[in-house]
Amino acid sequence: MPYLRQAWYMAAWSRDVAAGTPLAITMLDEPLVLYRRTDGAPVVLEDRCCHRLAPLSLGRVEGDDIRCLYHGLKFAPDGACCEMPGASRPPRAMKVRAFPVIERYSAIFVWMGDAERADASLLPDFVGVEDPRWRMLPGRMEYEADYTLIQDNLLDLSHVAWVHRNSFGRGEAERSRAWAEGELSIRELARGVRVTRWMPDSPTPLPQVPMVGPRCDRWSSFDYLAPGFFLMRGAVFPVGSVPERGEDPPMDAAVSRSFTAQAVTPLTRRRTAYYFCFGPAVEDPGAERLQHAFRDLALMAFEEDKTLIERQQQVIDADPSRKMVLFDVDRAPSLYRKVLERLRASE
Amino acid sequence: MPYLRQAWYMAAWSRDVAAGTPLAITMLDEPLVLYRRTDGAPVVLEDRCCHRLAPLSLGRVEGDDIRCLYHGLKFAPDGACCEMPGASRPPRAMKVRAFPVIERYSAIFVWMGDAERADASLLPDFVGVEDPRWRMLPGRMEYEADYTLIQDNLLDLSHVAWVHRNSFGRGEAERSRAWAEGELSIRELARGVRVTRWMPDSPTPLPQVPMVGPRCDRWSSFDYLAPGFFLMRGAVFPVGSVPERGEDPPMDAAVSRSFTAQAVTPLTRRRTAYYFCFGPAVEDPGAERLQHAFRDLALMAFEEDKTLIERQQQVIDADPSRKMVLFDVDRAPSLYRKVLERLRASE
Amino acid sequence: MPYLRQAWYMAAWSRDVAAGTPLAITMLDEPLVLYRRTDGAPVVLEDRCCHRLAPLSLGRVEGDDIRCLYHGLKFAPDGACCEMPGASRPPRAMKVRAFPVIERYSAIFVWMGDAERADASLLPDFVGVEDPRWRMLPGRMEYEADYTLIQDNLLDLSHVAWVHRNSFGRGEAERSRAWAEGELSIRELARGVRVTRWMPDSPTPLPQVPMVGPRCDRWSSFDYLAPGFFLMRGAVFPVGSVPERGEDPPMDAAVSRSFTAQAVTPLTRRRTAYYFCFGPAVEDPGAERLQHAFRDLALMAFEEDKTLIERQQQVIDADPSRKMVLFDVDRAPSLYRKVLERLRASE
Repeated sequence: MPYLRQAWYMAAWSRDVAAGTPLAITMLDEPLVLYRRTDGAPVVLEDRCCHRLAPLSLGRVEGDDIRCLYHGLKFAPDGACCEMPGASRPPRAMKVRAFPVIERYSAIFVWMGDAERADASLLPDFVGVEDPRWRMLPGRMEYEADYTLIQDNLLDLSHVAWVHRNSFGRGEAERSRAWAEGELSIRELARGVRVTRWMPDSPTPLPQVPMVGPRCDRWSSFDYLAPGFFLMRGAVFPVGSVPERGEDPPMDAAVSRSFTAQAVTPLTRRRTAYYFCFGPAVEDPGAERLQHAFRDLALMAFEEDKTLIERQQQVIDADPSRKMVLFDVDRAPSLYRKVLERLRASE
Repeated sequence: MPYLRQAWYMAAWSRDVAAGTPLAITMLDEPLVLYRRTDGAPVVLEDRCCHRLAPLSLGRVEGDDIRCLYHGLKFAPDGACCEMPGASRPPRAMKVRAFPVIERYSAIFVWMGDAERADASLLPDFVGVEDPRWRMLPGRMEYEADYTLIQDNLLDLSHVAWVHRNSFGRGEAERSRAWAEGELSIRELARGVRVTRWMPDSPTPLPQVPMVGPRCDRWSSFDYLAPGFFLMRGAVFPVGSVPERGEDPPMDAAVSRSFTAQAVTPLTRRRTAYYFCFGPAVEDPGAERLQHAFRDLALMAFEEDKTLIERQQQVIDADPSRKMVLFDVDRAPSLYRKVLERLRASE
Repeated sequence: MPYLRQAWYMAAWSRDVAAGTPLAITMLDEPLVLYRRTDGAPVVLEDRCCHRLAPLSLGRVEGDDIRCLYHGLKFAPDGACCEMPGASRPPRAMKVRAFPVIERYSAIFVWMGDAERADASLLPDFVGVEDPRWRMLPGRMEYEADYTLIQDNLLDLSHVAWVHRNSFGRGEAERSRAWAEGELSIRELARGVRVTRWMPDSPTPLPQVPMVGPRCDRWSSFDYLAPGFFLMRGAVFPVGSVPERGEDPPMDAAVSRSFTAQAVTPLTRRRTAYYFCFGPAVEDPGAERLQHAFRDLALMAFEEDKTLIERQQQVIDADPSRKMVLFDVDRAPSLYRKVLERLRASE
């Protein structure tokens, strides 16, 4: 199944692209170089000089341009060669592909499809790490696996009960099992899927126990949006305090609120970048401390996912003829797969 | 040439499969997981959950069953899914392949063919490491090579003269050359080949010199049995003490006796497990000491084989069109190859 | 494009093939073993015993012959098996390929084509590390790249301006840019290309500044000869002292002279050996000191090339459909490509 091309993919946290230093990243099998113009705006070009196919990321940023340091060809932000040592004037054929780019939510997003079809309105509200409503810390990992395995993992959080019994569950089976037994509602969105989960009368997550006691009504709702954004809000309520357990509970009544934004970017068919930020609401009691607790938990949990998913990929590759057999827990991953196929077909 | 499938292959020394801990091993390109039931009996299942193809070996043994720790599916020793969190009742399609298994001779053997054709009588008398007649120590190595290269190596022990001149030969050319110059008799067995070798009036192996003097009549006889078992007995006699040098000399007249059982298990087409145990007869003088001397020699020698065979495999892979040119020393490997082809054809 | 086969390739510096020790090297995808006869003459055989395809380089030199240490077959310098333990007389089929070899210029060259077509007159005047006219130190590197990328790199030295701005340029842009801006003359030779470059009134190379002052007229001329020899002379003149800037300036008038001989040998399609020696004329003032300065510069510069070329190869392999777009600076590489194609066609 080919990649969804006409879409924005996250390429980096803003803080990871420094002025003057080109950054190489391969996305959807395309080698890209990211750098900043003198005004700080990001530029994304094909990371392959059109002359002898050397990577521009070994080159040098000069003003708004980047110079290949093999034979000195200089390229402007639109990809055109604007200087060609040893020749009078660069012909039009001397150019590299330029990619539309948006910097927002403390992150850099690249349009991997046809430049003329780039549509800023298709970038979802990623929120990002510096949003004033949340105290979040950012991170990045790479998985040696196809992005669809990570997508399936995120879309069915019943796996928390098993994979994350030692991190999110802190070794108490009931705490993590709540994720497999909660009340689920799933619905299709224009470019994704929304999954809302109530875990009534379940063990309170450890960091919040001092505020809310040993048990609580937990609520969690995420949108998974094409091509790979995971945006999840969570809240903890005193047991029985929310009469109607719907998709949008009264957040004011919550004792604790959290948010996480994550982006899944295929680098190649067997390598995927995973960007995330995670933390409590700014106004939550102990938010300063909680943001570190949340991040440490997340890091531990994502390492658990990585171990499992990379081994899963190896098992799949050892015999690609084997088919998965899906069942009830796979409703959300299956629904999202349909959405993605529909979007792909419309390309 | 495809693997012989309807056969028992050694998967592990018994001691290496602990209660409660699943062991992953790929054999004949099939990922397997081994674990023990509460009564200690070994279970062998396909190491690939039928749901999302995660390895069961990352899972947890629960009583007689094993639980996948991705989404919690539990499988019984017959491979059927017996618990499926988030669904009422596992359908019949939810199952993994179960493999017939025998634990005997301190080792675990797996039937890699059709379960209904499993035939315990086809398991040879491997003897194994805890047999009371011998003092043996066990070992395991892996070669980055096709199993046929190891098979050919074991079936023609004239290589001892050259490959093992520093281990078995202890640096004295004549001691190891005896293996290239001995009197050989070769005959076909139902599922293998028997090779008997007399090395009359040859240098005594170093560990036995104190008992027998500098020279001896050495006898050695091995069976190589499909799909990959090497069972060799050896004996050292005073020079001239055995009037008739046949296939079955009077072991009571021997000054020293030894035995080795080895198993060659293809993991993939380029990776092979090699299991071995080696030692003197219990009643031999100095057996306690000799078992360590034998094992140290064997380890040194097998490393010599590994170095050579892995480089041989690289040379072959660099140009797979090159054919081997065989001659007299290859009678036993060639005869066994015919036996194996016959057995394969009958599948 | 297949390799040029009917040609001499450099296999080693003489000093790297010691008496009694076989040396393994793969060239043009062929595994070779090099060793010396008792009279010191080099022998080059296929590094693959014809019996079971084990590498002869794991074997033992015995007089003029080499013995395979798997089953003891011994091979003569002409590749014929001359001893076969366990058999009466080696048949004619028992042989390995022998390659014509020339030892000259402190180096060993192998004819990779049909033995009967070997033609010593096709070996260029490589000069080599021990030539009494120059003070040179030898070296060897390996690149994870196709040899054509190294060939293109050497044939267009305008890259010195960019790739070597910190080594040959010593961080002063003008010093290295002279290589991109010099007066170039290019002409075809029987089996190669000659490129002569004048860099009038340019910064003196640092090591020679004490002798010649801050600026000079630099001259450099190299022959690139099939299948991969780079022979370059250089000279530094006082500014304006050479009235006619032709292909052969009066070397007596030079303040400093240098020479470098380099050989590019494809090992496989993605691995290339690079042999080099580099140094000043013996009679140059400070030659003793300069030879070390030259060598240190060269090593630094070749590491710069290696980094760039290996990344270039990765970019090419990630999408082999991309074509290079050439321009003026590529005249010499393109001309040599034509020469090479003509030579190949004549095979």
